[in-house]
Amino acid sequence: MDPLNFTHILTKTVDELSDSASYKGLFHQHRDGEPIPSAKALQSIIELARSIIFPGYFGKSTVNSRTINYHIGVNIEKMFGLLTDQVLAGLCFGRGEECCEPDSADSRECAASITAQFVSRLPELRRLLATDVEAAYNGDPAATSYGEVISCYPAIRAISNYRIAHELLELGVPLISRIITELAHSETGIDIHPGARIGAYFTIDHGTGVVIGATSILGENVKLYQGVTLGAKSFPLDKNGKPIKGIDRHPILEDNVIVYSNATILGRITIGRNAVIGGNIWVTEDVPEGARLVQPKAAK
Amino acid sequence: MDPLNFTHILTKTVDELSDSASYKGLFHQHRDGEPIPSAKALQSIIELARSIIFPGYFGKSTVNSRTINYHIGVNIEKMFGLLTDQVLAGLCFGRGEECCEPDSADSRECAASITAQFVSRLPELRRLLATDVEAAYNGDPAATSYGEVISCYPAIRAISNYRIAHELLELGVPLISRIITELAHSETGIDIHPGARIGAYFTIDHGTGVVIGATSILGENVKLYQGVTLGAKSFPLDKNGKPIKGIDRHPILEDNVIVYSNATILGRITIGRNAVIGGNIWVTEDVPEGARLVQPKAAK
Amino acid sequence: MDPLNFTHILTKTVDELSDSASYKGLFHQHRDGEPIPSAKALQSIIELARSIIFPGYFGKSTVNSRTINYHIGVNIEKMFGLLTDQVLAGLCFGRGEECCEPDSADSRECAASITAQFVSRLPELRRLLATDVEAAYNGDPAATSYGEVISCYPAIRAISNYRIAHELLELGVPLISRIITELAHSETGIDIHPGARIGAYFTIDHGTGVVIGATSILGENVKLYQGVTLGAKSFPLDKNGKPIKGIDRHPILEDNVIVYSNATILGRITIGRNAVIGGNIWVTEDVPEGARLVQPKAAK
Amino acid sequence: MDPLNFTHILTKTVDELSDSASYKGLFHQHRDGEPIPSAKALQSIIELARSIIFPGYFGKSTVNSRTINYHIGVNIEKMFGLLTDQVLAGLCFGRGEECCEPDSADSRECAASITAQFVSRLPELRRLLATDVEAAYNGDPAATSYGEVISCYPAIRAISNYRIAHELLELGVPLISRIITELAHSETGIDIHPGARIGAYFTIDHGTGVVIGATSILGENVKLYQGVTLGAKSFPLDKNGKPIKGIDRHPILEDNVIVYSNATILGRITIGRNAVIGGNIWVTEDVPEGARLVQPKAAK
Amino acid sequence: MDPLNFTHILTKTVDELSDSASYKGLFHQHRDGEPIPSAKALQSIIELARSIIFPGYFGKSTVNSRTINYHIGVNIEKMFGLLTDQVLAGLCFGRGEECCEPDSADSRECAASITAQFVSRLPELRRLLATDVEAAYNGDPAATSYGEVISCYPAIRAISNYRIAHELLELGVPLISRIITELAHSETGIDIHPGARIGAYFTIDHGTGVVIGATSILGENVKLYQGVTLGAKSFPLDKNGKPIKGIDRHPILEDNVIVYSNATILGRITIGRNAVIGGNIWVTEDVPEGARLVQPKAAK
Amino acid sequence: MDPLNFTHILTKTVDELSDSASYKGLFHQHRDGEPIPSAKALQSIIELARSIIFPGYFGKSTVNSRTINYHIGVNIEKMFGLLTDQVLAGLCFGRGEECCEPDSADSRECAASITAQFVSRLPELRRLLATDVEAAYNGDPAATSYGEVISCYPAIRAISNYRIAHELLELGVPLISRIITELAHSETGIDIHPGARIGAYFTIDHGTGVVIGATSILGENVKLYQGVTLGAKSFPLDKNGKPIKGIDRHPILEDNVIVYSNATILGRITIGRNAVIGGNIWVTEDVPEGARLVQPKAAK
Repeated sequence: MDPLNFTHILTKTVDELSDSASYKGLFHQHRDGEPIPSAKALQSIIELARSIIFPGYFGKSTVNSRTINYHIGVNIEKMFGLLTDQVLAGLCFGRGEECCEPDSADSRECAASITAQFVSRLPELRRLLATDVEAAYNGDPAATSYGEVISCYPAIRAISNYRIAHELLELGVPLISRIITELAHSETGIDIHPGARIGAYFTIDHGTGVVIGATSILGENVKLYQGVTLGAKSFPLDKNGKPIKGIDRHPILEDNVIVYSNATILGRITIGRNAVIGGNIWVTEDVPEGARLVQPKAAK
Repeated sequence: MDPLNFTHILTKTVDELSDSASYKGLFHQHRDGEPIPSAKALQSIIELARSIIFPGYFGKSTVNSRTINYHIGVNIEKMFGLLTDQVLAGLCFGRGEECCEPDSADSRECAASITAQFVSRLPELRRLLATDVEAAYNGDPAATSYGEVISCYPAIRAISNYRIAHELLELGVPLISRIITELAHSETGIDIHPGARIGAYFTIDHGTGVVIGATSILGENVKLYQGVTLGAKSFPLDKNGKPIKGIDRHPILEDNVIVYSNATILGRITIGRNAVIGGNIWVTEDVPEGARLVQPKAAK
Repeated sequence: MDPLNFTHILTKTVDELSDSASYKGLFHQHRDGEPIPSAKALQSIIELARSIIFPGYFGKSTVNSRTINYHIGVNIEKMFGLLTDQVLAGLCFGRGEECCEPDSADSRECAASITAQFVSRLPELRRLLATDVEAAYNGDPAATSYGEVISCYPAIRAISNYRIAHELLELGVPLISRIITELAHSETGIDIHPGARIGAYFTIDHGTGVVIGATSILGENVKLYQGVTLGAKSFPLDKNGKPIKGIDRHPILEDNVIVYSNATILGRITIGRNAVIGGNIWVTEDVPEGARLVQPKAAK
Repeated sequence: MDPLNFTHILTKTVDELSDSASYKGLFHQHRDGEPIPSAKALQSIIELARSIIFPGYFGKSTVNSRTINYHIGVNIEKMFGLLTDQVLAGLCFGRGEECCEPDSADSRECAASITAQFVSRLPELRRLLATDVEAAYNGDPAATSYGEVISCYPAIRAISNYRIAHELLELGVPLISRIITELAHSETGIDIHPGARIGAYFTIDHGTGVVIGATSILGENVKLYQGVTLGAKSFPLDKNGKPIKGIDRHPILEDNVIVYSNATILGRITIGRNAVIGGNIWVTEDVPEGARLVQPKAAK
Repeated sequence: MDPLNFTHILTKTVDELSDSASYKGLFHQHRDGEPIPSAKALQSIIELARSIIFPGYFGKSTVNSRTINYHIGVNIEKMFGLLTDQVLAGLCFGRGEECCEPDSADSRECAASITAQFVSRLPELRRLLATDVEAAYNGDPAATSYGEVISCYPAIRAISNYRIAHELLELGVPLISRIITELAHSETGIDIHPGARIGAYFTIDHGTGVVIGATSILGENVKLYQGVTLGAKSFPLDKNGKPIKGIDRHPILEDNVIVYSNATILGRITIGRNAVIGGNIWVTEDVPEGARLVQPKAAK
Repeated sequence: MDPLNFTHILTKTVDELSDSASYKGLFHQHRDGEPIPSAKALQSIIELARSIIFPGYFGKSTVNSRTINYHIGVNIEKMFGLLTDQVLAGLCFGRGEECCEPDSADSRECAASITAQFVSRLPELRRLLATDVEAAYNGDPAATSYGEVISCYPAIRAISNYRIAHELLELGVPLISRIITELAHSETGIDIHPGARIGAYFTIDHGTGVVIGATSILGENVKLYQGVTLGAKSFPLDKNGKPIKGIDRHPILEDNVIVYSNATILGRITIGRNAVIGGNIWVTEDVPEGARLVQPKAAK
């Protein structure tokens, strides 16, 4: 085939792919000036948040106690700028023209106001994450220091992203909160929906394959192992046969529950305080306080 | 130990490691001018493909319907150049000198011809991926829009890479198709072998830990949850005790099958239409149409 | 809200977050001149190690047998510099001032000496990894060449990082060995603690979700599938209710053991030579030589 | 001096430098959302312009005549976005709040409108630059092809930047037009003020040290050598002893004038058609049509 | 020639070039741990200095008066770290082993102390540069604002680098001060030796080709045009025929002197207060206060 | 104007600029697979050459005498690859299809052979450049060491590029040799045509504005100051009024000639051994051996 033929195939394919019938439903047409939800910008925001919350562990800078306010100041200002854009992007995404005017001062003002509220909650986020670090350290005989937990444990990364994303979702910001937890999902294999509600002193060991669904509720001091699913059992369909959105469909885990690796807990059931769920099992009914479930013995 | 001693250790180790006996079997000696299979180049190719198939969701550009053809045109031309090189790299990799002459116009012409065929199938790939997006949206009550599914769902990334890699494998390109699915494996925890054959409206929820083996066959409208394995049970050995390559050894899932989290389905068995496989179970025998399998109750 | 108010919120939050009471326990204060443990530097070190051990497969360079010593020489020198810094960072991290003087020639000399020892073991590491490549190739009917195994298989990446990290831990370097295995965990979903002891011809198929605990011992020719956990069952607490660190608490797998997907093996138990553990099961007691365990049949 | 003392010096200096009395007149306080004039963004704009005007010579892309419109389309869209921002930055820079509302749709609309006008003049700019390329080729016996002139000759870069900047200044955009010519000044040593008016078929040989002042007027087919100054002789002062801005104070060179290296021509004088000014001389009076000026003989 | 022959030529050339006789005098052998003088690090230091001295004009950050101290704080801390390394590099460069122990705490302490002194002089440097900005603005009818002068004028960049480099030379730091002025030389074509002594309100118009020699002394309010040389006429040789280093050999320009383009002033002569030197002339003798020198008329 | 109008203007301009009549003579259409002359690749080649010729001064690596051959080996191999491509690009540029077949093994072989010859001359280039370093050091009282000359002096960069480019031109490689000297021109303001012939011990002080024309011949031990032009006086025209290419038209400077700043020497004249040409003068006639020319005294 001669090069002209290749060019011919390429230009013909370009025409097909540029035909609006072909990209219907798969095309996001941005309006001029509208910020774009950006995984790269959100990753930078997460890195700024990590360096603000755990100073000296993330980011390049060698902070000390006399200069820490410079670093936190610059990082918060950077975060404010980047996040205002992404909040606006989230607000505008997929809405009709009447709801969001990306170029209008009002929309940007609104995004900045949400972002400022988020920033003002960072001290509380740090307090909460400090309890998660403590729980991870106390729960793992292999952990040698808080510093090792903060630097190395994927759970800390996943829970940080979740707590940030949850806060943004509470402030009414869609989409970008989901992208933030998916960034942690890709990095750690831990998939926590930003809608879940999770108490203090939460920890996940190893974590690959953990799934925590959108309407899950976890009390304080809960511990999960790798591969645990807190999922939905089935979902009621509407009259068109589509799943009804927004129904409570994921489990409630009360305080001090432990779930071992690869266990699957499905549906709006309650696992009572202090219960222990053994690994590799499938739970679809309520479990009483203090119970211990294990898999039946394997056949030899 | 003084610095001279360090230098001495280093140079001695360099000599050991440069000894051909030491690197035997672990060394890939490129011939001059031969392109190198490159995960980085293949990642760029995947990103170009994503931005072509889902315009406005991936890539930096802010396309609109009047300028979309410029963007698709430039991206297809870039992809054609990068992919021709990688196809040639795949063709040459590990073959004897008689099969591939990297510098010869014929080999490059052949790679370009394969690449042009691949490009001409992009519109069909887009049509197929549109069905996967629809299936993910319809199957998840937490999904709020097609846009969220395309932007955030790891399954869409993994299935895109798989469908691209499968197409390349069908066109006779080894190795690089495998690298492409491993890129998605690393990003999403979903491991689909490019050899598998998978129908339209395919979806995977959450997805971490999913494995779909090389000779698996999936019908239309199949849904898998995280941690599902479609694997081989055992493999017949040849007379040297090595596994015989290329035998059909993975399951067949017919239309509308659902498999819940962490289930393991092994061997060339058939899961019949509309069957539902519960989580955390181990299936090594055929399952009839419409059957529902669940794990036995856990012991308390 | 006007911009001045936003600035006011930001500066107030900066003050709160810069208050030493707020960051207590979450702040790593570097001393001047002390190198910082850096995931980025360690990733570069791993990439150098891969390009040294498997020449021509990793790294950009197109080596041939006459110029291989230049490449290995430059890469080993780069690795020596980067790793000396990281070893020093690991030695200093979290120790009191009396143990480590980052600016002193002695501390740096000590780090350089450890690094030189590590470098001198690279030929042995290559020999060991060659057995792992061979095991992966022989154990997978889908593998078409050693080259494909080296280029594509996540297990090779995870095992390489583990063997490097284990060597560093043996030389007394904390923290950074852990960061190295977590880098592979993030890339592959395979979490091998650097403290584990693993024999030659080790392979993991697919691998996502595999966890191998700190005190695990694996013989030669062991094969694991995705989702396998070699974990601790429970850990004795000290008088303060904290887990006692450093106790042997993970399984021993003797030579030729195979463990199928999602099986969970917990506690200091022994799985005897040639035993086969089926998928999705939960094992907390010794398994005799040659035994085959499988899950009880699923209920229909 | 101990490290605490260093920190003390640093923080004290930070306080001094953050005192508003200290940075008075040297501080540009951006309003929120206002784009910043950026040499980096302007350099990108210049590179896009070069790749649009001289396709195949600048930019990475390997265009051919069937795909050229894709490339030009994408590059023009990128330029439009970047330049709209920079035009807005130029309009806002240093003006009072009443003149420019960076967040208002009107200001951005105005910047976009100016940018669209600029873009619509690119075909005319290309026509003009084609005459400059022709003049450079014809005027230099060392030039072997138009391609060499376009790729290598600093004059083409400097004149391109000048013609772009002049167009922007004509459209009323301050500051950024000046930054654009200074970028060329740094790259080539040729300093052409964007206010100068220069006819077609203009060329500069070698060019380092050439200065063309803001109110200079050059006819068609003018040729300058390196080190030539077209400057102001002296400038009338206002009653405060400050130079009066905006007066015509630089030379007029009529068609076909040639000026040799290091000649200095000062003041609002006229060098008549076809005149030749020899090197290293100092001219402050009108020169008649067709005259040839040379330096007096050197003393031996 | 076949590829083996090419490899043979390359390896043979490597051997020749690695022969110590071949690189004698052209090779800088670093001692382990010794920082390397780095143009890239020095460029970063200059950019930090510019963003500290002229806040809001250089650097990406959008500072305002309430957050300026965060930015200056972070930038000064970064500069302190980078510059301490470069000062140490400068001190060590080319000295014998007895003078500098790069790994010793003392040498680093000494470099840090010099750097802290430099930092403490930044407020004074800003005061001085403010006078240079004022002089440039007042001296050029084309300048529209201080902001334009700071953003665009190459003289401000060259003079900033010079004043920084001069300060470092005064503090006893060799080599790197010279690299700093050469960075400005490359960027602007203005070559000011860091040894020169230059008063306040100094300005250079256009500037390409200006040379100011190492022992030059300039008073206050001096103005130079492009191409001006303040050089040495000849230099006395020592008994080996080598020029004697360190003798005063460049001109003294008293307050308010103006020198027009391409004038060359050579030797330890004095140009008296208020003198004006016309362009393109060659001056090797003292010029009295208030004199005006011009080139003889050109021959027609 | 509404956004649709902007889009309309942009697409209309794209059409105009994509019209082949518009880009005639300004468009370089690459054939498929043909390497593109690349300033960026050539800059990398120059940096590799500098790090090979002056080990330890350029490049990041911290070489010592025992590991120098690794570094030189890797750098020469990289240079060989990059330069072969650029030589091929130079050979193909602007030639008809019959002269160059970019994809054919023969053309690439030919380029590789030229490149191998170039590489084999690097030891001789190093010997020559060592004489230039010596001349710069001996000729400048401000130079404190060979190291300072190599690190800081723009003349060394410009002369290195020239000597490399001259070698390539001698080997018959057009265009890219010119790009190489223009890279130095932009960096240093020194413009030496690769065709010039220049003896050993050559030095240029400061250098901005120096021009050395294509047919200049310089003996040994020549010294130039900034702003010196060795140019052509006028060029005979052919019958079409175009300058005749390739005629000897630049000066010959015999051994030990010194030319001071801003002097202009034009035409095929000879400046005899040991002659000294004063600054700011214009020389168009032969100058005898040992003569000293100076500018007539300035008028006061």
